[in-house]
Amino acid sequence: MPEQSLTLHTYWRSSASYRVRMALNLKGLDYESRPVHLVRDGGEQLAAGYTTLNPQQLVPTLVHDGRILTQSMAIMEYLDEAFPQTPLLPGTPAERARVRAIAQAIACEIAPLNNLRVLKYLTGPAGIGEEGKLAWYRHWTETGLAAVERMLDQQAAGRFCHGDEPTLADCCLLPQVYNAHRFECDMNGFDRINAVCHELEQLAPVRDAAPENQPDAA
Amino acid sequence: MPEQSLTLHTYWRSSASYRVRMALNLKGLDYESRPVHLVRDGGEQLAAGYTTLNPQQLVPTLVHDGRILTQSMAIMEYLDEAFPQTPLLPGTPAERARVRAIAQAIACEIAPLNNLRVLKYLTGPAGIGEEGKLAWYRHWTETGLAAVERMLDQQAAGRFCHGDEPTLADCCLLPQVYNAHRFECDMNGFDRINAVCHELEQLAPVRDAAPENQPDAA
Repeated sequence: MPEQSLTLHTYWRSSASYRVRMALNLKGLDYESRPVHLVRDGGEQLAAGYTTLNPQQLVPTLVHDGRILTQSMAIMEYLDEAFPQTPLLPGTPAERARVRAIAQAIACEIAPLNNLRVLKYLTGPAGIGEEGKLAWYRHWTETGLAAVERMLDQQAAGRFCHGDEPTLADCCLLPQVYNAHRFECDMNGFDRINAVCHELEQLAPVRDAAPENQPDAA
Repeated sequence: MPEQSLTLHTYWRSSASYRVRMALNLKGLDYESRPVHLVRDGGEQLAAGYTTLNPQQLVPTLVHDGRILTQSMAIMEYLDEAFPQTPLLPGTPAERARVRAIAQAIACEIAPLNNLRVLKYLTGPAGIGEEGKLAWYRHWTETGLAAVERMLDQQAAGRFCHGDEPTLADCCLLPQVYNAHRFECDMNGFDRINAVCHELEQLAPVRDAAPENQPDAA
């Protein structure tokens, strides 16, 4: 393989960045980390320079040989197409649909409701206060993870979300569960989810992607 | 092609259902509509029978020859793999990444914040009232569409979001803009978005997917 240049604009606590870090590491791809601090100076992601790179003013952004890629799900699909080693999607359309559905159940139904700018709006313009914000956070995390638990239950168990190899679904699940613990969500009853996360945490490439192991971790 | 059985569990006003209806119609696939009324009787999607089909209790669900598929983005990717005619994704990984990023910018950053169950929570447990709910709706739609407009601006224009053929990105954009109009969002300044939607509305398969043309439209 020719030498590749991969630069990830990332924030240690961003679950979308964590997903892409997992995907990169599971595929054994070296990359340079460029931290974007989402809180300092009102949020470095809002600076003009970064907006040129990422018009949504969100992390992550991956730059591959000068090509700018945004949106974590799209980035992971790109990585799987551009670097076919250690595939993160299974082989058949039906299996791929199942993996993508689990991934999207997290990326579309849990994460967007609980990200930093949404929480800021809730305590700012919406004025629901810290208690209200926490209740909101836990409600959507627990509702969403309960649905994911039912999805995992529908099919014979493997070590991970789908079978015995990590997929895009796992790259979405573990960061969401990390956040759930951080906000003290009730994780009781999520037996399949907890078991999958335990398996994932045994893998060195996964551990290396964890927030606390990032150069910008506070 | 052998005869295929496609059944879509759908709600006329659900933007995620609208996306999949567009994808099915653009591919020229016949399907049977099974309406799931999200409001009547407290929401038919919460009934036990439907939960077995869709553990997330959301529409749409597509059943293809007995195979159950959920999450609109995963369903559309599946359709594109299982029925390659009239592809909804372009040919190269980089182009596909761009289309998916635009689609996800809508599916992950706008739609999840404004769906029915979220709005219910806002006026219910969060107690922000009807005015607060509308402000919330417009804030996230306008913020999200402004980012999509910038994404469209980054690359030479075509008739649609990416080039001159409709893609997954268009299947996400038009339903979101339909909702934006319904909630009287400010659509000024979204020149690229408005132009793309105008082009899309010229296509009969797209018009056939519109909420008002569904059997369950009220």
